[in-house]
Formats: sequence, C-alpha cells, structure tokens
Amino acid sequence: MRATVIHAPHDIRVQEVPDPVIQQPTDVVLRVLRACICGSDLWAYRGESARQPGQRIGHEFLGIVEEAGSGVNGFAAGDLVVAPFVWSDGSCAYCAEGLTTSCPQGGFWGSVGSDGGQGEAVRVPFADGTLVKLPAAAASDDHLLTALLALSDVLGTGHHAAVGAGVEPGSTVAVVGDGAVGLCGVMAAKRLGAERIIALGRHQARTDIARTFGATDVVAERGDAAVAAVRELLGGDGAHAVIEAVGTEQSMRTAVGITRDGGSIGYVGVPHGSGTGLDLGVMFDRNIALRGGVAPVRTYIPELLPDVLSGTIDPSPVFDLAIGLDEVPAGYKAMDERTALKVLIKP
Amino acid sequence: MRATVIHAPHDIRVQEVPDPVIQQPTDVVLRVLRACICGSDLWAYRGESARQPGQRIGHEFLGIVEEAGSGVNGFAAGDLVVAPFVWSDGSCAYCAEGLTTSCPQGGFWGSVGSDGGQGEAVRVPFADGTLVKLPAAAASDDHLLTALLALSDVLGTGHHAAVGAGVEPGSTVAVVGDGAVGLCGVMAAKRLGAERIIALGRHQARTDIARTFGATDVVAERGDAAVAAVRELLGGDGAHAVIEAVGTEQSMRTAVGITRDGGSIGYVGVPHGSGTGLDLGVMFDRNIALRGGVAPVRTYIPELLPDVLSGTIDPSPVFDLAIGLDEVPAGYKAMDERTALKVLIKP
Repeated sequence: MRATVIHAPHDIRVQEVPDPVIQQPTDVVLRVLRACICGSDLWAYRGESARQPGQRIGHEFLGIVEEAGSGVNGFAAGDLVVAPFVWSDGSCAYCAEGLTTSCPQGGFWGSVGSDGGQGEAVRVPFADGTLVKLPAAAASDDHLLTALLALSDVLGTGHHAAVGAGVEPGSTVAVVGDGAVGLCGVMAAKRLGAERIIALGRHQARTDIARTFGATDVVAERGDAAVAAVRELLGGDGAHAVIEAVGTEQSMRTAVGITRDGGSIGYVGVPHGSGTGLDLGVMFDRNIALRGGVAPVRTYIPELLPDVLSGTIDPSPVFDLAIGLDEVPAGYKAMDERTALKVLIKP
Repeated sequence: MRATVIHAPHDIRVQEVPDPVIQQPTDVVLRVLRACICGSDLWAYRGESARQPGQRIGHEFLGIVEEAGSGVNGFAAGDLVVAPFVWSDGSCAYCAEGLTTSCPQGGFWGSVGSDGGQGEAVRVPFADGTLVKLPAAAASDDHLLTALLALSDVLGTGHHAAVGAGVEPGSTVAVVGDGAVGLCGVMAAKRLGAERIIALGRHQARTDIARTFGATDVVAERGDAAVAAVRELLGGDGAHAVIEAVGTEQSMRTAVGITRDGGSIGYVGVPHGSGTGLDLGVMFDRNIALRGGVAPVRTYIPELLPDVLSGTIDPSPVFDLAIGLDEVPAGYKAMDERTALKVLIKP
C-alpha cells in the first residue's frame, strides 16, 4: 500500500510500504477513508520532535474494517469506525478509569513499527479497546465523515481542555490558540454551557470559525496586550476557565495572565516551551490551577459522537483544505506556512 | 507594646513599638494570647524573601478583642477570636467565592505598615471579614488554645493542599514535606477519608506525628529513591493525590514523580524553586494536574473549627516548643536549625 513516511525534517514522502496484516488476534486491518494532518505533526515536520528516518506519520483517521482478528468481538469486516489518536487495550486499570492515554499496552500511531494514519490502511492493535463504531450510512455522507474525523483528535482534545479548564454552565472562558484544537475548545466550551467565550487569534478566517463555534468575543492582540485586552473585556479580572492550545512559552504566559484568581488553565498544547511560561509564584499567589495533558480521546468519543451525528455540533469547518494522498507533502507545507488551518486527506 | 521586628536576615528582635489603635471603624485591636513561628517566616529570616528593615513579622495568632471600631458588627471587647494569616474585607466578589486571599482590600500580617502576629497586640483591619469567634471557655484551656492556633494557618493550609490534591474517601495520598503544613496535610487527608497516606520524611519525631495524624506508611528516602519507594509501595504506580508542602525544586520534582497518571498535586509550599521542578512534558504525558497556592484559610475555619473543638482532630502536636515573647529570636534559630518543628509563642 501507499503511506506517508517522514525521512527527515521537511522531508515527508508518500511511498510504497508493506500492506498491513493481522499480527495479533486482537488486531483489525482498516482501510482509511479519511485522515488529516495535525498541528502536532508539524513539530515532527519541523524537526522539533525527534523522529527516526522512515517512521510513518498521521494519527487521525476513520475507515472501513477490512479484516478482524479472531479475538476481535466488537467489529467485523465492513464496519465503519473511527480511531482515537492512541490505541489502548480497553481492559487495564487506566482504561477503566478513562485515562486511555496511560494504557501500558497503548501506543501512538506512527511510532516505530506501527502504521500511521496518513496512508491507505492501518493495522489497529487492541481493536475492541481502541475503535468506535460509526453508523454505516455515514460512509456515503462526505460532510458528516469530515465532521466525524474530528473525533479522532481535535474535538476530543478541545473537550479535554474545556474539562480541564473547569468549564461549566455560565462559565466565562478564554481560549489561547486559533488552530483546530483551540477552535474545537471554543466549540466544547459552548457545548458545556459557557456563556462568554473569548477567542484569542489574529487570523480572521480562523476567528470567524471561532465565532461560528460559539465565541462571543475575539481578541487579536498578542502577549501583554492580549492580557490587557482580555482583562478589560472582563472588568479587570481574568477568565475562570482558560484553554491553552498551543504549547509555547508565550501562549502559556498569556494563559496565566488572563486567568482569574482561583481559575483553571486547561492545557492541551503539546509542551514546546510552555513549562517556562508557567510563573509558579504568580499561580501560587492567585490560586491558578493547571489541568490537562494528552487527551484520552477514546473516552470522550461516546459522549461527543451523538452530538456530531445529530448536527448539534459540526466541527467540519476546521478542515479548510482537502487533498488526496499524493498531495500530503504539499499539505504539510500549507499547514507549516499557515495557508491551511487543517488539511483533510482522502486516500 | 512589644513586638517582633525583622531588621535584616538573621536579625530578629523583640522591641518596643507603638501600641495599635483603631484607625478605621472596621478595625479591631486584639490582645494576642497565642502566636507562633511559621516555616514560611524562615524564608524572610534567611533573606530568601525580601523584607524592609523594621517590618513586623508573624501571621498566625489568636487572642482577645480589646477594642472594636464603631463599624464592627460581629465582635466586641472580650471576645476570643482567631485570625487567618491574611485579612480580607468579607464583602468583595473574591471573598464571596471563598478566595479570601485574593481580596483586593486584603493583606498579609507584617507587611509594611501593619502589625505582625508575633507581638502583644495587633490592629486587625476588616475585623468582620477576617476574624472568627471562638468559644470563650477555650481561653482557659491551654491545650485547646494551642490546637485552635493551627486554624490560623497550618491546618487550613494542609486542608487546602488536600483539597487541591483531590483527596476523597478511599484516596491514596502521598505527602511531600514533614513540616507542620505537611503533617497537617496528613491530618486533613485523613479527615477527608483517605484510606492510605504515605508520609515522606526522614525525622522520626516528625514521622511519628505523621503516624498519629493518620499516615499509614512512611518513606524516609529522598529524591529518586523516594519516588522508587513510593511507587513500590503502590504496586508500581504513584498516588492519585499528592500534597507538596515544601516549595523547592526537589520537593516538586518528587511530587511529580510520585503522582499516578491522571492524579493531582495539591501544592501549598511557597514556591522557592518549585516551578523548576515541574516537568511539564511529563505532566502532559501523564495528565497530572496542579492545584493549590496560598490557602484561603478564612474560608476553611468554619468547616474545620467544630472538629478541633470536639477533639476529632488535634493538630496541637505540631507545636513542639513553647516560648515567651522575649525568646522569639531563639525560636527562629531553633526552627532554622530544625531542632524545633514549630514554635508556639505565649506573649
């Protein structure tokens, strides 16, 4: 089959690789219908996250089960399923607690020896613990398929940030980051009942989506000016619930600056300097909490899926460019240069 | 009157200062019956927290109301009262939320221009918002007075840490720090229903108190060895709820190391390097939350007071040395040299 391989920073190629086969009875081989490129893939693309030459890449996908191992109970050939961005066994203590990302048998698509999502097919370990079935009719609904793909990562990650930030009905929320995760954080906050949602972002195409998703205010400033602007909107204080969806020192510094005393930062931006942006002395004096991390998306899919199926929420606008598999290298370039927000792949 | 004054690092003196008088109608002048020295006072004593020469010091005290301003409704001369370690107006939005430490009119005893607790008397601003009345009979009960003094800071601070760590019935808890706050964290965790409480500490006199307060296990190792020992006790994983009651880089690093994936660190150690001990990459991967800060003790006193009065909890063993006002400099020396755990002052 053909799949995306990362050879070095800025050297992403689509090439022939071995077809996936059932290796364990609990495996499924899945034909990818939709995949996409994640902002976090760019860390690898830019060489800021180490990868071995030849690793696969891509961790968001949905598709049709092609073959199920003899130990798979929940899925059969022909099923339409979505995969969260890590696999997990579904049977350990962490999976039972809902923290599927800490499953000792879990793993990340594209890690050494595993398939990535940006290819024609994927071998899925622990299929019963990992995959979630989708209605078969969705397979022929292009718009819905796109929306459902967001369940693989960005929607669940935005939801994790909103939960970590303590969003509840009536909350005032501020969202740092206008990427797909930040936008999904806006959507998740709205879904959880937030009354006021301030989106921080400078790109109108993105902040327009934020408004569609539920943002009541947009702040285009950055750094100290952003902190001042958010505080002015909120009568001098910050927001009770702040979503940090970038991961840099500046984004975390902004997040701390716009959090109201006693509030929480829900952080889901993969840390690339954000630890340095945490001024613990300030957080201590102001009782600011920090909750979040890698999102246990598998746990959230059953909660979010009905709202996507019913159209109550529609995250599909975060995908603003659709390409075929051959164009994946160009897709990375577009996201790296910020000419695309999030790239949808139709293999 | 006589009160404790800090002139320079290691230069603490008890000297004559002006008698406190009512300055605002909402003030009370209080005669101090009991005060004490806090581990956090040592940061000033050692010069690690800046003080202007001549500042008062001491932020934990209880005593008898000597005079109440015309605008004070809740207290009259002769009342026995305890003061939390910050004053607060009791009427702002933060006080209404219970975050009294963020009250815009609040302040810290011993800050420039205010009295400290380690003296014969104190002018208490916003007495109605700040003080809590105690039963008059307690004034003649030496043991109970000592226990009640812990409400001023260490018991409420330990409780804040336990709440931040998410302690609930059945929790497994680990406590980093064998000072008075760490020990009160043990007590607070037990009170909230923790089933297993691991106290980290090397001083047997202190870990003996920890056992009295509810610790089920003691780990004497430090650093990486402590992390390994706690994890071994817990079958390889960490504790769901971890209390960090020191504030140094090493203590925070230990706290992160012994927290179970998905767990929380309740931190109340005043940050003196602890920010550097936060490895955000590790916390992200493992979904470790951080909650805490300066404890809004005033909010907790009404909840904790009945249990102290009934003897359900007795924090008095944290005070292992009682001195008169003249001996305060020697008391600092004893705590600095760790020959005393916490010094009680009877002015």
